[in-house]
Amino acid sequence: MKSSDRMTAEGILFTDQYQLTMAQLYFRTGLRERQAEFEHFFRHYPDYGLHHAGYCISAGLEWLLDWMQQARFRPEDIEYLRCHTGGAGNRVFHDDFLKWLQTNGTFSGIAMRAIPEGRVVHPNVPLVVVQGPLAMAQILETPLLNQLNFQTLIATKANRIHQSGRGQLLLEFGARRAQDRGANAGTRAALIGGADFSSNAGISHVLGYPPKGTHAHSMVQAFMALGEGELGAFRAYADIYPDDCLLLVDTIDTLESGIPNAIKVFEDLRRKGHSPVGIRLDSGDLAYLSIQAARMLDEGGFPDTAIVLSNNLDELVIWQIITQIQEEAPRYGVDPDCLVRRLVYGVGTRLITSAGQPALDGVYKLVAIQNKNQLVPALKVSETPEKTLNPGHKLVWRVYDRRDKATADLLSLSDEDPRQAQRIVLRHPTEHTKYRVLLQDDILEIEPLLVDVLKGGDLVYDLPSIDDMRLRRQADVERLDPGVRRLMNPHTYHVSLTEGLWDLKQGLIRSARTEGCGSDTRVAQEANAEERT
Amino acid sequence: MKSSDRMTAEGILFTDQYQLTMAQLYFRTGLRERQAEFEHFFRHYPDYGLHHAGYCISAGLEWLLDWMQQARFRPEDIEYLRCHTGGAGNRVFHDDFLKWLQTNGTFSGIAMRAIPEGRVVHPNVPLVVVQGPLAMAQILETPLLNQLNFQTLIATKANRIHQSGRGQLLLEFGARRAQDRGANAGTRAALIGGADFSSNAGISHVLGYPPKGTHAHSMVQAFMALGEGELGAFRAYADIYPDDCLLLVDTIDTLESGIPNAIKVFEDLRRKGHSPVGIRLDSGDLAYLSIQAARMLDEGGFPDTAIVLSNNLDELVIWQIITQIQEEAPRYGVDPDCLVRRLVYGVGTRLITSAGQPALDGVYKLVAIQNKNQLVPALKVSETPEKTLNPGHKLVWRVYDRRDKATADLLSLSDEDPRQAQRIVLRHPTEHTKYRVLLQDDILEIEPLLVDVLKGGDLVYDLPSIDDMRLRRQADVERLDPGVRRLMNPHTYHVSLTEGLWDLKQGLIRSARTEGCGSDTRVAQEANAEERT
Repeated sequence: MKSSDRMTAEGILFTDQYQLTMAQLYFRTGLRERQAEFEHFFRHYPDYGLHHAGYCISAGLEWLLDWMQQARFRPEDIEYLRCHTGGAGNRVFHDDFLKWLQTNGTFSGIAMRAIPEGRVVHPNVPLVVVQGPLAMAQILETPLLNQLNFQTLIATKANRIHQSGRGQLLLEFGARRAQDRGANAGTRAALIGGADFSSNAGISHVLGYPPKGTHAHSMVQAFMALGEGELGAFRAYADIYPDDCLLLVDTIDTLESGIPNAIKVFEDLRRKGHSPVGIRLDSGDLAYLSIQAARMLDEGGFPDTAIVLSNNLDELVIWQIITQIQEEAPRYGVDPDCLVRRLVYGVGTRLITSAGQPALDGVYKLVAIQNKNQLVPALKVSETPEKTLNPGHKLVWRVYDRRDKATADLLSLSDEDPRQAQRIVLRHPTEHTKYRVLLQDDILEIEPLLVDVLKGGDLVYDLPSIDDMRLRRQADVERLDPGVRRLMNPHTYHVSLTEGLWDLKQGLIRSARTEGCGSDTRVAQEANAEERT
Repeated sequence: MKSSDRMTAEGILFTDQYQLTMAQLYFRTGLRERQAEFEHFFRHYPDYGLHHAGYCISAGLEWLLDWMQQARFRPEDIEYLRCHTGGAGNRVFHDDFLKWLQTNGTFSGIAMRAIPEGRVVHPNVPLVVVQGPLAMAQILETPLLNQLNFQTLIATKANRIHQSGRGQLLLEFGARRAQDRGANAGTRAALIGGADFSSNAGISHVLGYPPKGTHAHSMVQAFMALGEGELGAFRAYADIYPDDCLLLVDTIDTLESGIPNAIKVFEDLRRKGHSPVGIRLDSGDLAYLSIQAARMLDEGGFPDTAIVLSNNLDELVIWQIITQIQEEAPRYGVDPDCLVRRLVYGVGTRLITSAGQPALDGVYKLVAIQNKNQLVPALKVSETPEKTLNPGHKLVWRVYDRRDKATADLLSLSDEDPRQAQRIVLRHPTEHTKYRVLLQDDILEIEPLLVDVLKGGDLVYDLPSIDDMRLRRQADVERLDPGVRRLMNPHTYHVSLTEGLWDLKQGLIRSARTEGCGSDTRVAQEANAEERT
């Protein structure tokens, strides 16, 4: 794509067409400045097939904010809309709307609350709440979902892989298998969620995490074709990078050629006063080969060199590798724990694509709209009960039990503060027989999760660094029950409604059922749903 | 991301770190200008789990070329590299290399041959062949794979969905579930592979395909919350878009509310001289609901309105919907063929992520390198035979049989022309007992597939329009055997080697086996591998 086209395709028109047709409708019907509240939330944890997540890691907010600040309708964008014709050949967007859009088509009227990046998050909990003029809040839907869904998906996968690898160094290697420039958002999310570094050079520099990488098979092949052999390639590498010498040993034969050659080169390096870094294995039975590699490196006098594993890794493959090492290493005189602690994981495709579940099912739903100076809850009823919205302007709380473990996320009406209640009823969002009662004595802390991010389009929030996000993430994951952290069949974390919110929701559902199906009948939502803000 | 950072992260540093460390090594060892040949190919068709592809559609080339033309080492990029330190705190990239890179770090020395976008392609066939100075040809690896792998993956998925939908209108709806800006590349690839239009506004305008979209549930919800009901929402929409009136009918209840309200609005429109476009169904049993919708619309006097289906569609879901319609529609007095011909498919998540297989396993491998003014074939041996490279500078041919169906893709040495041979032996790439003999009488046409795209960095190729790519794609798919086009268990298309290439490969493998495992021994490839270009 040419760079001028890129500005069109990645600017404010990076949205779905229906957001624009709806915006014109709101303009024409006088609803354009009507305050509306939308929530971004996901409905299900990523389900990878054989296994599924028990929590997610939020990510993507800062880049969304950057996009919002830059996005506006430029004359070129307006011109595209002006030329757009409908089925009958007539113009779809009219001059009055386009004129309004050129002046008012920014996100300067938006207020936003959000759960910060790096935090543990759960289904049906609003991660971002947008309040603003209906037309522009609607246009925001697609770019918001695009950016938050993907980064949250990848931060989550990175955290699972990090957990599976027992906190050993994790490198993100996915640029070649990502969706075009989406690779960079993926790298950022991976760094937030659990990767320590990435191979992706540009974005790593931008984010301040030095990129990692040494050499590929092609370098060894080139030296072989030129008659220098693998050893020649390794020597050339060690010559130029004596203090960063990590050698890929599987171009010809890992055990017969690669590792013996690496050890020769390491011996030379040591004689010259350098410490070799290690080897990388990129094919074959990685558990078996890493045991043999450890044995050979130990015998060669290099027990501290790293063994980097790559080749279609993910959380299950790493789990399997560690299990096999624990069973098999002693047979070869290798201490399995020492070996596991020298492993480094390079994870590409299955991290950057979140293989098994390549999209988070995050949605952006209207939950309230201004009517006569009040925010009126809005509902979408569905035959699938869990798809029926939790309506209205709400607060989000995390409840920690006496063990200092998070025991539930709680959605409340905006005038409720569960910290003040002696007794809290946690209602299941859809099943009326399921609830739980907590007394203040059961509770160590109740933490509000949403922070104010934008007011009137202005940033009112100190954006944390990625280091801060990582600390936050680490603390949040540690405060999860171990059952929730399990890679397979995790315990289901509770996301609950207060009694007040439950009653509002049920009342609205009854009204919609009774009166909503007709056509001209007014949906009697206003009576039930007083302004709560 | 700030826009200045974006220039860093999406410019020439949009590559893996090891490409840069290898480039410095080639600089230091005097190999930087050595001519090298790399091939991009994929090893396997996408495997979606229950089903897998029997062919792919190539895409992504034009955007790669755009990227290559813009990419160069800016002073800011050089500065990042200058500041990059290794494990011992020392600088990784040295001034001599950086100085060379700032002057020479462009793709102006690259020659490229490629299979054009939109063409049917198969595993192990080089889609792009890059020849150029070793250092820069190496740096190209990551951005090339990133762009070609993803677009080919999505063009392929789009074609499957298009086939499954029997050529009915297919709309790409995936922006909210894509990888950040990667959405745009996905939209482009979908348009090449099988989608007719997209909802993604900006990129649709850029590519010249008007974006499609009408309204979301939120619009109906807003009108409901304001007391206007679904009918109020539909009337407002019809008022503003009388000639493009397509209504989403499942916000409350599809059959009880949505469709009856839509029909009322359609009647008003018709009275005013407009033709309503149709309805969209986004939840529930789409087969059953579309039968009922068809019945109600027929009875209402609107037999020509479209029925747009969306909600987690893919090729299997569409196949199932059509099958169910064919079985069930007659029971309700609805003609199934008429119904299928009024369907339109809106496909989001599962198209833009290529659900089931979210990455193409395309690789970029060194196949030859210059030695003493000759291009010497390079080999990578693998314990998995199909991972052993097909070495050397090659040509690619497609052989059509007497039925005018493609029967094999054939890789040959560069001095071979199978069009001149009376008898062609097609060797299986790895199994020596498997081969096929074709006589000229069996053959209708032998077509060379690679075209010259870049010479000395200059474009020597007329880039086709997307319309041209679509025509090409359509023609190629029609020339596939129906068995190869099957959605499930497709017939395996033959990708073969000529006798000459087979002999070269076997000779190189023997040499590598005999002499390559040692370390200082020269790999005796040069003797076997004379210059063939």
